[in-house]
Amino acid sequence: MPMLKRASDKYSAFKGPSLPDRTWPSNKITKPPRWLSTDLRDGNQALASPMNPEQKWTYFQMLVDIGFKEIEVGFPASSEMDFQFAQRCVLDGPPDVWLEVMTPCRKDFIRRTVDAVKGAKKIIVSLYIATSDNFIDTIFSTTREAQLRTAVEHARYLKAVTKDDPAHKDTTWALMWSPEAFSDTDPDFAIEICRAVKEAWEPSAEVPIILNLPATVEMSSPNIFADQVEIFSRGFSGDPTVCVSLHNHNDRGCAVAAAELGQLAGATRVEGCLFGNGERTGNVDLVTLALNLYTQGIDPGLDFSDLPRIRQIVEQLTQIPVHTRAPYAGDSVFVAYSGGHQDAINKGFKRWNATADDDKHARPRPWKVPYLAMDPHDIGASYEAVIRVNSQSGKGGIAWVLSQALQLEAPKAILGAFSLAVKSESELKGRTLLPNEVTNLFLRQYNVQSQDQRVLSLVKTALNTSDSGSLVRVETVILVNGLARQLVGHGASTLDAVRFGLSAFADCRLEFTCTFGMPSAGFVNSDLPESSVIAIVMCSGGGRTTWGVKAAGTEEQATLLASLSAALFPVVQAAA
Amino acid sequence: MPMLKRASDKYSAFKGPSLPDRTWPSNKITKPPRWLSTDLRDGNQALASPMNPEQKWTYFQMLVDIGFKEIEVGFPASSEMDFQFAQRCVLDGPPDVWLEVMTPCRKDFIRRTVDAVKGAKKIIVSLYIATSDNFIDTIFSTTREAQLRTAVEHARYLKAVTKDDPAHKDTTWALMWSPEAFSDTDPDFAIEICRAVKEAWEPSAEVPIILNLPATVEMSSPNIFADQVEIFSRGFSGDPTVCVSLHNHNDRGCAVAAAELGQLAGATRVEGCLFGNGERTGNVDLVTLALNLYTQGIDPGLDFSDLPRIRQIVEQLTQIPVHTRAPYAGDSVFVAYSGGHQDAINKGFKRWNATADDDKHARPRPWKVPYLAMDPHDIGASYEAVIRVNSQSGKGGIAWVLSQALQLEAPKAILGAFSLAVKSESELKGRTLLPNEVTNLFLRQYNVQSQDQRVLSLVKTALNTSDSGSLVRVETVILVNGLARQLVGHGASTLDAVRFGLSAFADCRLEFTCTFGMPSAGFVNSDLPESSVIAIVMCSGGGRTTWGVKAAGTEEQATLLASLSAALFPVVQAAA
Repeated sequence: MPMLKRASDKYSAFKGPSLPDRTWPSNKITKPPRWLSTDLRDGNQALASPMNPEQKWTYFQMLVDIGFKEIEVGFPASSEMDFQFAQRCVLDGPPDVWLEVMTPCRKDFIRRTVDAVKGAKKIIVSLYIATSDNFIDTIFSTTREAQLRTAVEHARYLKAVTKDDPAHKDTTWALMWSPEAFSDTDPDFAIEICRAVKEAWEPSAEVPIILNLPATVEMSSPNIFADQVEIFSRGFSGDPTVCVSLHNHNDRGCAVAAAELGQLAGATRVEGCLFGNGERTGNVDLVTLALNLYTQGIDPGLDFSDLPRIRQIVEQLTQIPVHTRAPYAGDSVFVAYSGGHQDAINKGFKRWNATADDDKHARPRPWKVPYLAMDPHDIGASYEAVIRVNSQSGKGGIAWVLSQALQLEAPKAILGAFSLAVKSESELKGRTLLPNEVTNLFLRQYNVQSQDQRVLSLVKTALNTSDSGSLVRVETVILVNGLARQLVGHGASTLDAVRFGLSAFADCRLEFTCTFGMPSAGFVNSDLPESSVIAIVMCSGGGRTTWGVKAAGTEEQATLLASLSAALFPVVQAAA
Repeated sequence: MPMLKRASDKYSAFKGPSLPDRTWPSNKITKPPRWLSTDLRDGNQALASPMNPEQKWTYFQMLVDIGFKEIEVGFPASSEMDFQFAQRCVLDGPPDVWLEVMTPCRKDFIRRTVDAVKGAKKIIVSLYIATSDNFIDTIFSTTREAQLRTAVEHARYLKAVTKDDPAHKDTTWALMWSPEAFSDTDPDFAIEICRAVKEAWEPSAEVPIILNLPATVEMSSPNIFADQVEIFSRGFSGDPTVCVSLHNHNDRGCAVAAAELGQLAGATRVEGCLFGNGERTGNVDLVTLALNLYTQGIDPGLDFSDLPRIRQIVEQLTQIPVHTRAPYAGDSVFVAYSGGHQDAINKGFKRWNATADDDKHARPRPWKVPYLAMDPHDIGASYEAVIRVNSQSGKGGIAWVLSQALQLEAPKAILGAFSLAVKSESELKGRTLLPNEVTNLFLRQYNVQSQDQRVLSLVKTALNTSDSGSLVRVETVILVNGLARQLVGHGASTLDAVRFGLSAFADCRLEFTCTFGMPSAGFVNSDLPESSVIAIVMCSGGGRTTWGVKAAGTEEQATLLASLSAALFPVVQAAA
């Protein structure tokens, strides 16, 4: 059955509540929410191969290291494995972390859940009941009234067997209560049932009840979800014993947005998973949410300084690779292939680096590099990854690569000419060129390392400083049109001396400019000793511009070879 | 350098414009935008291995098949390859598709771009210039005024060499003009420069100018972007010669939301890529946007009926796999592992199927299955993918699997008992069980196919209908506590006859209920002939409930064997 031409025969627009006086669009997020990781519950249950207890424990410890203070550890009443894992977290987990355990409204399950966390310091029991009419009707064939009664009855029961039970007085008990699926629930009923549960539980301002609003299935655009959350939040406005929490799924690809707008609408707690793991399209991605805050100048309270290592652990345990384009964590995030982008990033980096102090312990400075939402270093990514060169790249990327490998700032005109060679090499190979490939292509293209056979092996150069000042004398023998000829010149510099000497050969006045580089520590090419100097000499005259690029042991030697190459034996004319 | 504790030393909150009287949050999307695919330009330039011309052509044809009427085909002035590809699209592309070609504000580039599309029916030339102060300053070291002059000058030049040039009168020329990066541009300046360009281009209501607003880098939450778009749109309110367009990137994971809220704010055109390909975190995902419309009852005008095939082509050409949790297209989208979800989906499907007409050409019916945002069949996914069973699954998933493979509705109590066996098998294997594995485990667990050695091979059964009615006689020889004993019973049914016969063995009154199934065409098990009947018999009495499950050639035979098994030789007691 293909997609229907009349989609409205099968689907209809989600009818959100009316809230013309909504206030959330003018609000700002100024502090991070309380974060809960449900990686070990909602995330784990959605894996083709759920984690075994040892893997879950590794994951738990990583979450603690990141800085999570609320971690859902499972559904202890559902299996012996979950039961034992909850006990392990109680015994070996840090006392300042709230452990969240889920159970449906069934007294035997609640009882067993409480048994599983006996002796814990801080426990959140997550209770839920269906409140959406679709769920109440389709799945449970019951009524709103019956659901409300069941909800209250089990909240009371939980209270009796936890905070009212003297045997459990050393544990701080919090109730999290979720109207399931909130995103498809009449907000007024959600408020009604939550109020009733709250009264049954009797929370305090010290340990508020968490009213958790699941977008069990994402039903609408995030502005409508935010309206729903604002209506709900108003129902508990100013009540210090209530914490409004979000639990977003990503069916419409808007979970991150919905969680952000939901915070504007009054929520102060968010449940989700690292890298958006979870049932179907996943739970909201906490890495993105946290770093979205960070890049707006708000400390998220979660430490992703070594995001690559966290990613590696999660990928190994979940067997789900992080997508190459996943915000912040994907391989492509800090990569620019387009010439325009590369050029802009290049300039941005230069300007940003120029604002650094001289000392090594540079103070933090405002980040402002085009195309990069944040400094890759902050989360363990490297600048090297930033620019890659493919057939769609331009001069900017090549300039960056050469500056990194050869520490030289190649003039724009030679980049223009060289970029054509890079394009055609990349097209030929049908793939991105690695930075080293680009640099080596440059060295080959301009015969940087090879001795020009037309500069005869007998060439002599004498660079003498005269008594009266800094006069340079150049003397060499070169093959021009098959004939060996001597070139002798004097000048204030090597370039001047070459120019003087060349006046006998050229039919016009020549101008030279020279740029130097040298191989970086990271660049390896066996034909180019680390101590080499690379000179790029531009030679203009008679309406044309040519280039010579040569490596040698000293600046003077490299300049001499490059200027001869530029004037007499240019490899290629630069583009206009 | 790790993440800073004081993020505000390096990053600051994006300062959006103030728009307290915004109207977009109350608006609804009621029709699809004009779609432009930039897969072949912004998408292609972001690939490690950009497509070769043949691959681009395959992609182009697929875009046409999907229904795109606006396709960006490249940056013809940038390379010979892009130039020739544009020409091929002009020659061989369908005449009703607008071809979009990008060029910076350089006259030689514009000239070459126009040459590349000579003879086309409908061309959109995409011109852009930096308007964000960060870009103007950091990258170009210029001023707003200079940018405005350059923009106007090149719009005029483009007009002169296209729609004002009689040689090009057979082409319909549209200008798309982008203030780059709009998401970081003062909206007032964006309006000012766009007005000036519009006046220079002189668009008509038939061919409006496209004012395209790039979120070149996603800078803020999508509500702020929507405010920016609404301010901009108001600047051209009621002008039929202007089409406001969006070009979102996904740096904060909110591109889909931003494009949706941007449409609420006045945009009527969206540029993006399939599956969110594009620089860094990608362009906005057009598959998600289109299917978000579809599931709200709005025909998107793009046909994703065979989404798996489209996905396969794109993955092959881009070498980027679609993430398992990508909305609509990912492998996990229609998979439920959780028992609660499985149970709900199971019930939802049953109810939805019950609304079908009897004839095969079922009319479309409103979709309402919990946890599934849409009918998987509409986009080429299958129901079989919906439910998988792992150690975190419950009875619902198992019920679904058994109903699919054996066409039987297993009673809840036996599912409860069997689910423990499934859990332990899944934990043992450390992975999801395939549906066939679950079914075969069920057959093994209850010895469904094996003859019980305690029902002696001499067993005789006589099933006679008496003259007076439908009396059934059962006669069999069984081993009880090592002794062969004869069981003879009469009754109105096989079950009644067995019960009667068993009264001699049991010390209490027994009750039987029976459920039948048979292997589905799709289920293959060499020990279970296709024509088998499977009977599940529940036997209650004396405070306990037991089960017998047997396969045989007829319902009567299966019932007989299963009831004996349940009463005398139960495999396992059902859970309470």
